[in-house]
Amino acid sequence: MQAELTLKDIYLARQRIATLAERTPLLRSESLSRRWGCEVWLKLDNLQPTGAFKLRGSVNALSGLESEQRERGVVTMSTGNFGRALAYAGQHLGIPVKVCISHLVPDNKVEALRLAGADVVIHGATQDDADTQARRLQHENGLAYISPFDDPLVIAGQGTCGLEIMEQQPEIDTVFAGLSGGGLIAGIGLAVKTINPQAQVIGVSMNEGAAMLESLSAGHPVQVGEVASLADSLGGGIGLDNTWSFAMTQRYMDRGYRVDEAQIARAMLHLFNQEKLIVEGAAAVGIAAVEQHQIDLRGRRVALVISGQNVSPKTFAQACRLAGENDHAYL
Amino acid sequence: MQAELTLKDIYLARQRIATLAERTPLLRSESLSRRWGCEVWLKLDNLQPTGAFKLRGSVNALSGLESEQRERGVVTMSTGNFGRALAYAGQHLGIPVKVCISHLVPDNKVEALRLAGADVVIHGATQDDADTQARRLQHENGLAYISPFDDPLVIAGQGTCGLEIMEQQPEIDTVFAGLSGGGLIAGIGLAVKTINPQAQVIGVSMNEGAAMLESLSAGHPVQVGEVASLADSLGGGIGLDNTWSFAMTQRYMDRGYRVDEAQIARAMLHLFNQEKLIVEGAAAVGIAAVEQHQIDLRGRRVALVISGQNVSPKTFAQACRLAGENDHAYL
Repeated sequence: MQAELTLKDIYLARQRIATLAERTPLLRSESLSRRWGCEVWLKLDNLQPTGAFKLRGSVNALSGLESEQRERGVVTMSTGNFGRALAYAGQHLGIPVKVCISHLVPDNKVEALRLAGADVVIHGATQDDADTQARRLQHENGLAYISPFDDPLVIAGQGTCGLEIMEQQPEIDTVFAGLSGGGLIAGIGLAVKTINPQAQVIGVSMNEGAAMLESLSAGHPVQVGEVASLADSLGGGIGLDNTWSFAMTQRYMDRGYRVDEAQIARAMLHLFNQEKLIVEGAAAVGIAAVEQHQIDLRGRRVALVISGQNVSPKTFAQACRLAGENDHAYL
Repeated sequence: MQAELTLKDIYLARQRIATLAERTPLLRSESLSRRWGCEVWLKLDNLQPTGAFKLRGSVNALSGLESEQRERGVVTMSTGNFGRALAYAGQHLGIPVKVCISHLVPDNKVEALRLAGADVVIHGATQDDADTQARRLQHENGLAYISPFDDPLVIAGQGTCGLEIMEQQPEIDTVFAGLSGGGLIAGIGLAVKTINPQAQVIGVSMNEGAAMLESLSAGHPVQVGEVASLADSLGGGIGLDNTWSFAMTQRYMDRGYRVDEAQIARAMLHLFNQEKLIVEGAAAVGIAAVEQHQIDLRGRRVALVISGQNVSPKTFAQACRLAGENDHAYL
């Protein structure tokens, strides 16, 4: 791997992941186009076989392993979606996958991990605790540690989502995606801004525990506290020894926003009402950002990455209550 | 159109041309891989419906016209392949196409132009004479003048060839293409070097009348004499008022070579013997350059753009004689 990722790495990733990950639809949203006075498309990565975009990077990372390492297996820590995707990919490629998670991860995601074939290790109250455990297994059992976001093959894999967007609608000039460890924004940003340097790439995090936004403000990776959120997929730190995703987010993300829980809930409800999409909170933060910050998108061509649909009925019901059952979102 | 082309323009072109131009195969060449100690692929743009890559840029240029201009029609000058492609595209899109050519253009190409539906205007002994006639028709009849190479939509269209190469084999690090007015090299260079900045893009012209190579040496567009060549598709000037293709060739082409007629003939014969491909001289100049200049390609991953197959039996027989009928090229 060269010192810097290029679009070539994303094309390579696409070849490697083609048999396991979907080329997902880019669906025009009438309701949001009308509401915002622009053209809006939804990139439906919730339709990946594991219900979230993370499958792209997972398959690419596992495909890059040497045969000896494939036999020993891999370990990761994950809020759920990455672990699930890695387990799914591992099962299809014949590679054992251990996943370390914290007690914060919702039950439906733990269950999904096990169903996907992961050996789940629950450890500690934070992502950082889970990560420490993963590093321990790496050294004790000779497993390959795969970061959910700070890994060049993972980033290149997630970048295939951005490449598809630009292929499907080359006129798109604004892309919103959830911002957590930065793997998605780094990959999408590399693809989108290499193809059209004038395009804007915007990342969105929840209000509390926005590790990447705090790190960008500080100019270096910093630790943040973790708080439960509807966008739980966006939780976790970026690693103080971050090698790839921090620098790439600095370079390719034009702007970052934070959003309130109530706005995330309203956005989820809007997608349910108007698009009949059940999505997890992290997938709705782009809409929430436009609404909360009254971002002026008139005349623009906007893609929103609908990153995943792994939400429990309980959490979804909670979002509905928070949005107000009589408030049919934006209509 | 913005001031500078980006990969986005090539993606837009691909959407516009998809119904008329082919996504052509990228075929591995065992014989050349073995001979040069590297991996060689042939990009078979000779398999376009009009027998040459020019269809890509033609369809993209005509698709970009306003409806009023579509009714009045267009005019161009061409050594044959571009005119033929434009006529073909015009017939499928319902746009009248006039083509001005010089007396140097071989009979088979004139016939092919008429068969494709062009209104052929033969004028003068050089491309420049033909061009003057085309400009006259532009002003007298209100036709849109479309340059075969110095037009942003034409260049973006030709660039789809480079995009396909990188999609088909992202590891390719060296691309050879014929160099004439620079439309092909400009488009391919934009695609290939945006996707992989480390890749090398190499243009090849015939020995005499290499207008772009002379212009690059001079630092500005210059006029050159025209001489008959097996690579007649590469003949013609680049225009003293060149706006796009000269600057883009300066920027994206790493190296240019000239080749002898005997080397072109040997390369044509090799493709016939080893790959069972009948190609025009311009399509064989990449192979000729590697042989004549003993270019060291060991360990590289090389794409040769097989740009067209519009060669008459008479010219092909002449190439065979020149290569020496008992010299089965490189074997």
